[in-house]
Amino acid sequence: MAADMENTSMKSYPMVGGEGPQSYAQNSSSQKKVVENTKELIHEAVIEKLDLQNLPDISYSNNTTFRIADLGCSVGPNTFIAVQNIIDAIQSKYHKTYNIIGNPEFQVFFNDHSDNDFNTLFRLLPPSRNYFTNSVPGSFHGRLFPNSSLHFVHSSTALHWLSKVPEEVVDSKSPAWNKGSIICTGLVKEVSEAYSNQFNNDMHTFLMARAPEIVHGGLMVLILLGLPDGVTMSQTATGMNFEILRSCLNDLANLGLVKQEEVDSFNIPFYFPSPKEMVGIIERNGYFSVEKIQELSKASTKLVTSMDIQLRVTSHIRAIAESLIKEHFGHEIVDELFSRFQNKFANSNHTFTKENTPDIDLFILLKRKAWID
Amino acid sequence: MAADMENTSMKSYPMVGGEGPQSYAQNSSSQKKVVENTKELIHEAVIEKLDLQNLPDISYSNNTTFRIADLGCSVGPNTFIAVQNIIDAIQSKYHKTYNIIGNPEFQVFFNDHSDNDFNTLFRLLPPSRNYFTNSVPGSFHGRLFPNSSLHFVHSSTALHWLSKVPEEVVDSKSPAWNKGSIICTGLVKEVSEAYSNQFNNDMHTFLMARAPEIVHGGLMVLILLGLPDGVTMSQTATGMNFEILRSCLNDLANLGLVKQEEVDSFNIPFYFPSPKEMVGIIERNGYFSVEKIQELSKASTKLVTSMDIQLRVTSHIRAIAESLIKEHFGHEIVDELFSRFQNKFANSNHTFTKENTPDIDLFILLKRKAWID
Repeated sequence: MAADMENTSMKSYPMVGGEGPQSYAQNSSSQKKVVENTKELIHEAVIEKLDLQNLPDISYSNNTTFRIADLGCSVGPNTFIAVQNIIDAIQSKYHKTYNIIGNPEFQVFFNDHSDNDFNTLFRLLPPSRNYFTNSVPGSFHGRLFPNSSLHFVHSSTALHWLSKVPEEVVDSKSPAWNKGSIICTGLVKEVSEAYSNQFNNDMHTFLMARAPEIVHGGLMVLILLGLPDGVTMSQTATGMNFEILRSCLNDLANLGLVKQEEVDSFNIPFYFPSPKEMVGIIERNGYFSVEKIQELSKASTKLVTSMDIQLRVTSHIRAIAESLIKEHFGHEIVDELFSRFQNKFANSNHTFTKENTPDIDLFILLKRKAWID
Repeated sequence: MAADMENTSMKSYPMVGGEGPQSYAQNSSSQKKVVENTKELIHEAVIEKLDLQNLPDISYSNNTTFRIADLGCSVGPNTFIAVQNIIDAIQSKYHKTYNIIGNPEFQVFFNDHSDNDFNTLFRLLPPSRNYFTNSVPGSFHGRLFPNSSLHFVHSSTALHWLSKVPEEVVDSKSPAWNKGSIICTGLVKEVSEAYSNQFNNDMHTFLMARAPEIVHGGLMVLILLGLPDGVTMSQTATGMNFEILRSCLNDLANLGLVKQEEVDSFNIPFYFPSPKEMVGIIERNGYFSVEKIQELSKASTKLVTSMDIQLRVTSHIRAIAESLIKEHFGHEIVDELFSRFQNKFANSNHTFTKENTPDIDLFILLKRKAWID
């Protein structure tokens, strides 16, 4: 298995660091909901699928250390909640399996790109945590850990990010040129294929990097944004929001604040796969069995006024896209752009009910197969 | 063995972060010299003292991972040089022992206080490194790693820093009140005892935390500033420089820029032990054997003009003390203080020859005993 220690050529789009009003730490409530919704699923996964007595290096002894990684952790606090859920579930199963009260040791690895704000992550660490803390810099599309060194891997709301914008979609000579949009709307076949190919390649390199790192029988929980079969991105709330953002960028181009070519060459590097597409990728890879794949239920958000919604959606889109915008257009336009976004969003007839926001959170539980190496 | 996962009550005094002109990264040339001088010693230590064939978890197999920690790593680049020296030596020994060309895997843990600038550390990482990279936040006076998880531990120019200023030395009612100085000059018996007790306690908690973490037969290299037996701090260049700093603080107090009480309650929390004192501490602890203890040779620095010396010494002292000064006096006085320091240093008859700078770099090689647990 050939895999670089770390592929530093990968692009990274860190969430906004620090703890300020525009930071990811303050604007990741939808991601937090995902983490909360998965608590029960993670507990079930550990109880039903983690075969402690046959897991390498794990036994009832003082030297038993469970090693857990969260890939694409950002700066917290969601990553701490997810990790604690995993540890609580493993402790519970460990006590039942060995019929003892004592605790094994846990070593947790928080991974994200090397330009993630790890200083903030460490500042936000829970003071009374029951695990040894590590951070691991680098792209999860490359190798990050030694062979057979992880027992449980978790990655939430990260894998729908591509390692790069597919080249064809910003190439004016390509049939896949995505001139009319900044995302994969699903409306143009060639564009969809280019995005899908990039996603398939990225998932393949991700799985090939994880296969040697995870012990045989080890579990991996992947949570990412997806689309139900037959639904296009253009029909989702996320799709509509990014079309509003595109429209605002066009307005800035008309005002001469950015160049039209810059708008045409700007695409957001994310892709929302269908459950069927995910299963196909994992099965073709062959190193992991799909133990469970399901849609996470979305708790309805209590937003009382339309101003609440405007502010929340604007902050959310800004937290996601700000570093991409800055890199492509420069930092000067960011405030203006999101001020316009908020106005345009307010004037759209964009209502947030479950019916017309059918993008989904996919929960996928994988187990590292033991019979293949 | 009772040891907290991480003692967050410990004080930390991070070196100046980032890569600017006052940063540790730009002002750690004396530390770099220490790292270079230890290359050969580390190579010898691995070749002569690391018993690969009896080291837990290490064998000729794909799953062999050497785990190395650098404790008190700061932001680089010195830590990267030290770690590479260790890896090169282990690879060389591994190849000789197993008579093969293939390489084992290396997992490196860069540790420092959680307010260390890890973002800069990651930015400065060598792009083509041959190890998996981790950072570990927390005080090395507490537990940082799981049981039996490290094969080689390194700590350079960090352990002479105390976890806190001994309380007595800033207590005006104590016979150990260090009113006349901001360091342990060695001239007042009670002050020396207070500093020495704190150092002994800190070394004890350090060794008790490392004992379970390092595999039986694992090695630990400790490099710290020390004093030859019979020499007092007041006779060393470092001692003299900090006396100049104290004198500048007094000047600021006379000008009303800081309060005299603030100067009187300011002490630098470091202590330079003698080789004899170190051996006594390690032997009383009992978990490690002293395989080697020696003074590192100091390469003479090529400083052509007296201005070179002034700038270098000022930058060096500032990089060490700036965060302490800011915490105690506020950031406003820092530029003024070091401007005064440079002038006063220039006007002192403080010459830098080996003869009158007898503080030493102590190199200590320890091996985790196998017969005690």
